[in-house]
Amino acid sequence: MSRFWSDVVHVLVPYTPGEQVQMPGLIKLNTNENPYGPSPQAVAAMHAAVGDDLRKYSDPSNTMVKDAVARRFGLKREHVFLGNSSDEVLAHTFHALLKHDQPLLTPDIGYSFYPTYCSLYGIEHVLVPLNDRFEIDVEAYMQPCGAIIIANPNAPTGIALPLKSIATLAATHPDQVVVIDEAYVDFGAQSAVTLLDRYSNLLVIQTLSKSRSLAGLRVGFAVGHPDLITGLERVKNSFNCYPLGQVQQAGAVAALDDHAYTEQTARAIIDSRHWLTAQMQALGFEVLPSHANFIFARHPQRDGARLAAELRQRAILVRHFNRPRIDQFLRISIGTDAECTALVNALGQILA
Amino acid sequence: MSRFWSDVVHVLVPYTPGEQVQMPGLIKLNTNENPYGPSPQAVAAMHAAVGDDLRKYSDPSNTMVKDAVARRFGLKREHVFLGNSSDEVLAHTFHALLKHDQPLLTPDIGYSFYPTYCSLYGIEHVLVPLNDRFEIDVEAYMQPCGAIIIANPNAPTGIALPLKSIATLAATHPDQVVVIDEAYVDFGAQSAVTLLDRYSNLLVIQTLSKSRSLAGLRVGFAVGHPDLITGLERVKNSFNCYPLGQVQQAGAVAALDDHAYTEQTARAIIDSRHWLTAQMQALGFEVLPSHANFIFARHPQRDGARLAAELRQRAILVRHFNRPRIDQFLRISIGTDAECTALVNALGQILA
Repeated sequence: MSRFWSDVVHVLVPYTPGEQVQMPGLIKLNTNENPYGPSPQAVAAMHAAVGDDLRKYSDPSNTMVKDAVARRFGLKREHVFLGNSSDEVLAHTFHALLKHDQPLLTPDIGYSFYPTYCSLYGIEHVLVPLNDRFEIDVEAYMQPCGAIIIANPNAPTGIALPLKSIATLAATHPDQVVVIDEAYVDFGAQSAVTLLDRYSNLLVIQTLSKSRSLAGLRVGFAVGHPDLITGLERVKNSFNCYPLGQVQQAGAVAALDDHAYTEQTARAIIDSRHWLTAQMQALGFEVLPSHANFIFARHPQRDGARLAAELRQRAILVRHFNRPRIDQFLRISIGTDAECTALVNALGQILA
Repeated sequence: MSRFWSDVVHVLVPYTPGEQVQMPGLIKLNTNENPYGPSPQAVAAMHAAVGDDLRKYSDPSNTMVKDAVARRFGLKREHVFLGNSSDEVLAHTFHALLKHDQPLLTPDIGYSFYPTYCSLYGIEHVLVPLNDRFEIDVEAYMQPCGAIIIANPNAPTGIALPLKSIATLAATHPDQVVVIDEAYVDFGAQSAVTLLDRYSNLLVIQTLSKSRSLAGLRVGFAVGHPDLITGLERVKNSFNCYPLGQVQQAGAVAALDDHAYTEQTARAIIDSRHWLTAQMQALGFEVLPSHANFIFARHPQRDGARLAAELRQRAILVRHFNRPRIDQFLRISIGTDAECTALVNALGQILA
């Protein structure tokens, strides 16, 4: 506490990111990083961008990256907004589009950064409970609201919402922005980008951190109607005109264009997820049906926090959330085959 | 205008950055970029950071960069805050530290992003006039206020405030945060970092975009009392936990550590500034006394906007601000010797 702080600082509940531990031999399955490296074309493009030209400002309009996103989805540049990670895009979205007289609706179990953004921008929100199967229940969103934001697949459950449910949400809330946060969509869920031509109130957010394997580069984007994008640009240009440096822009363009590589590595991760799910079930775990690059699992006889601690003793990091309804679950990122095997062996020892 | 926008979006007056024009043969003296490239050690460090490890998140605490800043100034890690450019650091500073019941004081002529941040965060502010010589008059800040922010050297005048005036500001406002934005300090002004051990209300902000020649990388920082830094960290961790990617962190550490290179290139720019100032004066320009990597000049017989347009026709970009008191001035970045010579020749032709 300090007399120098603005009032808002006192009420903030900052987000706690997964630990970034440096330890030899560590198996790090706690922050949903991609076990495979980024596209070799992206690596080459980033090397080419490192040099004397970094003395100059990057393009503040992010034009080439916008065009790469537009190419990927068959959209136009005017439909695309870029940011320094999807977390920054989300922050600007909360500020520019989600603060209204009526409360924002978001699931009680979802990306835990959403309530933090609400405290940062003074946005009233209502947490809408998932059903007993930890699914988003679209009927529960049929109430007065200022806007809606959900992650699809949801985090940390990994459960995907069918496209027709998203269409229902958008169609029944024509005067409210509906944001679909698709950080994990490339691991088997359906993207709502295909609905954009029908719903001008729909905003879809994606990241290059997961399926494009560039968590350490920090690039995210939103796509939607130009009116929504204009609102976001106005906030962005009142905050930081140049959110993406030259290396970020070069790497992002190449990674987006090398979609074959993204699909190939995403398929490998999906295959590993199926294998790991079966192994965990054989060990007695309940595993929620995941369409993400992680699984969310609990063991009926073992405490979640304790399991996470026992794995940590074996140099395996997974994520445990000390939150109502999910404090018995572990969120486990899909690693390489060797990492998944090591995890299964460790759990076998712990449960023996 | 859109019914989907939050109220704040309607009242924003976004900042307009200098143009980033791509044109062969263009002499670009409009965005205060460093004419020399970044430190070769920084370039090598960035190449080393490009690779498969980008699949992983960067260190959200920016520890190695904080330590490099601390080494540079003889401070501790707890005194340092990092951001994705000093513009982001400024944005978080306005949000976390400058919103109080009393208005923020800032010069009427200063970095034109400051009033934009005020509109973004709903901060009442009072513009304090520069004196007739375009200098900051410390006496004019002796009035009730919530906080103070000034750029030193000031932008776009380039005029530096002596350290004792900054000490006076800090000493006479013990309950208000005093922010000194030192984007251009390495080109001959005195840094207020040396005052930090005396004033817990003082926050100094610097960037790697100017003297460290990394405008295209996007790294900035603030140094001050740990209470101020904690307030900034709370906002940062409620906005984007990982503002700096791995390439940014690697390049920033190496650039900060290679201070000899920064000093050497800054000296070359200062020499060019002296030469250019003398040449411009010989052409009849009034040139304000600059301690920055740009000069601010007007010609008693020629309209500023028209001069800028005529230079543009000759493929030379300078910055003109269509604002009261300074609409007859040109802000001209210090380029290479060849660029400065070309500018002088072009002005000679225009004025002939």
